[in-house]
Amino acid sequence: MRVNGKQYRTIWADEQDPRVVKIIDQRLLPHKFFVEELRTVADFATAIKEMHVRGAGLIGATAGFAMYCAVLNDPGDDSGYMARAAMTLLATRPTAKNLAWAVARQQEAISRESTLAAKQKCALAVACQIADEDAEYCRRLGQHGLRIIKKISEKKNGPVNILTHCNAGWLAFVDYGSATAPIYAARDAGIDVHVWVDETRPWLQGSRLTAWELGQEDVPHTLIPDNTGGHLMQHGMVDMVIVGTDRTTRCGDVANKIGTYLKALAAHDNGVPFYVALPSSTFDWEICDGVRDIPIEQRSDDEINFVTGQTAGGDLATVRISPTDTVAANYGFDVTPARLISGLITERGICKASEDEIMALYPEKQGS
Amino acid sequence: MRVNGKQYRTIWADEQDPRVVKIIDQRLLPHKFFVEELRTVADFATAIKEMHVRGAGLIGATAGFAMYCAVLNDPGDDSGYMARAAMTLLATRPTAKNLAWAVARQQEAISRESTLAAKQKCALAVACQIADEDAEYCRRLGQHGLRIIKKISEKKNGPVNILTHCNAGWLAFVDYGSATAPIYAARDAGIDVHVWVDETRPWLQGSRLTAWELGQEDVPHTLIPDNTGGHLMQHGMVDMVIVGTDRTTRCGDVANKIGTYLKALAAHDNGVPFYVALPSSTFDWEICDGVRDIPIEQRSDDEINFVTGQTAGGDLATVRISPTDTVAANYGFDVTPARLISGLITERGICKASEDEIMALYPEKQGS
Repeated sequence: MRVNGKQYRTIWADEQDPRVVKIIDQRLLPHKFFVEELRTVADFATAIKEMHVRGAGLIGATAGFAMYCAVLNDPGDDSGYMARAAMTLLATRPTAKNLAWAVARQQEAISRESTLAAKQKCALAVACQIADEDAEYCRRLGQHGLRIIKKISEKKNGPVNILTHCNAGWLAFVDYGSATAPIYAARDAGIDVHVWVDETRPWLQGSRLTAWELGQEDVPHTLIPDNTGGHLMQHGMVDMVIVGTDRTTRCGDVANKIGTYLKALAAHDNGVPFYVALPSSTFDWEICDGVRDIPIEQRSDDEINFVTGQTAGGDLATVRISPTDTVAANYGFDVTPARLISGLITERGICKASEDEIMALYPEKQGS
Repeated sequence: MRVNGKQYRTIWADEQDPRVVKIIDQRLLPHKFFVEELRTVADFATAIKEMHVRGAGLIGATAGFAMYCAVLNDPGDDSGYMARAAMTLLATRPTAKNLAWAVARQQEAISRESTLAAKQKCALAVACQIADEDAEYCRRLGQHGLRIIKKISEKKNGPVNILTHCNAGWLAFVDYGSATAPIYAARDAGIDVHVWVDETRPWLQGSRLTAWELGQEDVPHTLIPDNTGGHLMQHGMVDMVIVGTDRTTRCGDVANKIGTYLKALAAHDNGVPFYVALPSSTFDWEICDGVRDIPIEQRSDDEINFVTGQTAGGDLATVRISPTDTVAANYGFDVTPARLISGLITERGICKASEDEIMALYPEKQGS
């Protein structure tokens, strides 16, 4: 998508030297647009854990490229280097399903090759394939989601008001995004859309990333505190909610950024359709009860006690907003039960958040 | 309550010169404890509107003292000075019921006196009475709320985990607070309590005020982003919710800080008791349907786009957290329908959030 009018993806191998992988350091957005170079597994692990990159699809794509760089640095001496690299990566973000999915996909592909050179070549191809597939799946699910927005648009005057939480935009994937793909598709189809952007404390993915990427793409939007959505829905100011997900169970329970569950409850209470958009790489085919079985990451309380932003002089500064020594709890995600979800928007189409309908779309996962 | 071990109220007439009213400037908390002096209606209007003082009871008490200072400055020439003073004050915070209540109470009392000197004397007495009554009502409702906490405590091992939103602490009243009064009473009764403190974006009343006042009183607490409560409730980590209110209708609909409704939905979905604590000055006896009829204040989007805190060097600094020129919507309150509320804790006792039970507690308001 566009940054200052130029097309970007969120991750790519350098054209001159494909041993170098480039990412947009999202910690610095919206204040600075900085492209960072990653070379080692440690670089990648830090980039994922410290959220230089974040978001379901992008974590997966980054893990794909990380496994490629791992095999580039593999001493090839059976010392267990690759297994340790995989473990290091898997430990960075416990809730993210795409992470485990991409690492496993690379492990399987690499294991099929016998020489180190062949493994390296294969790993680059798979990393690029994961990234391309992510972009293509998001593009496709955008087309499916467009149908829902179009229907709403046909029934009302004025813009379709869509609320989203966190950033499930192109910055969370390789391109297009999941929650944003239908929005960008609707904009491209000439539909009048307006997005309510939850600021998404504590990391402020909404105000720092979603507001920024919608601004870069000229999509009308209004930033709101996370507390606001219920009030808007009570007053008919939200036509639909679309969010992304970091892990969705085979039965349709959805782990997404902390606070998503609260918006789903408000949508349900006010009869507002609540959709979750995801490429199938985000499904966890092995579990059903998300509240019980999806591990929820806990992060540093610094993200709550301190806020970083831009001073009037243009520098970045970090300020403490709570009393000294305040203890804070920082759960990264919550789980929205399937019963609160109107539908899942996938690259294969839209289905109910139920095991039956999910399995009907992905019959090859039956009994998995 | 205590600040650095010394007892304070949130507002008081200066002992040496009762023409000067003193408040704690809450904009600077928790970083600086600063006592500000107010003398004119303009001082008071700014202090209320710009939130040097805030919170249901304290807005009422401040309005009481403001009317007293108004009559001190009244030229006594029938130029409509007092009516204009009242209008100025009423325009500062449209949702706050205690504001209108205190202004009306002063107007009525002042109108009963004939000389300016008598009006001034009467207005000081009424201002002090409003403040004393606020403190006493909060103390009483704390004793009623204590019974609920005690019951929960008797049924479980470990601390009673109470979630609260915004600051309905002593800083929001004259003393004790509304939501916090039962908590302080429970602590005094030797009950093991722990408070989950919603940080309460955008103004951060939770992290800046509630965490600070609980810390000053040594009440165990954990700061959480507003997004977190649903997850905690899903996992049995919240035993009850207690919030305050800025206006409660005769039928039990509750306007409180934006985001309260989302917590009420989560409590309802997880069978967690959800209580609202209020002195009767917060009731709006004239309306029933809160979602329809309570005016919701909209504030500057600067509160969303900018955050102020303390730098490592100890200075206060303001940083922008959203992209330049981002438009934000800042609704100050939402309305929680009575159906989601387990009970109202008032100075007269606990009742259901229903017209029948409210009227049974306040029979003198029948037909009002």
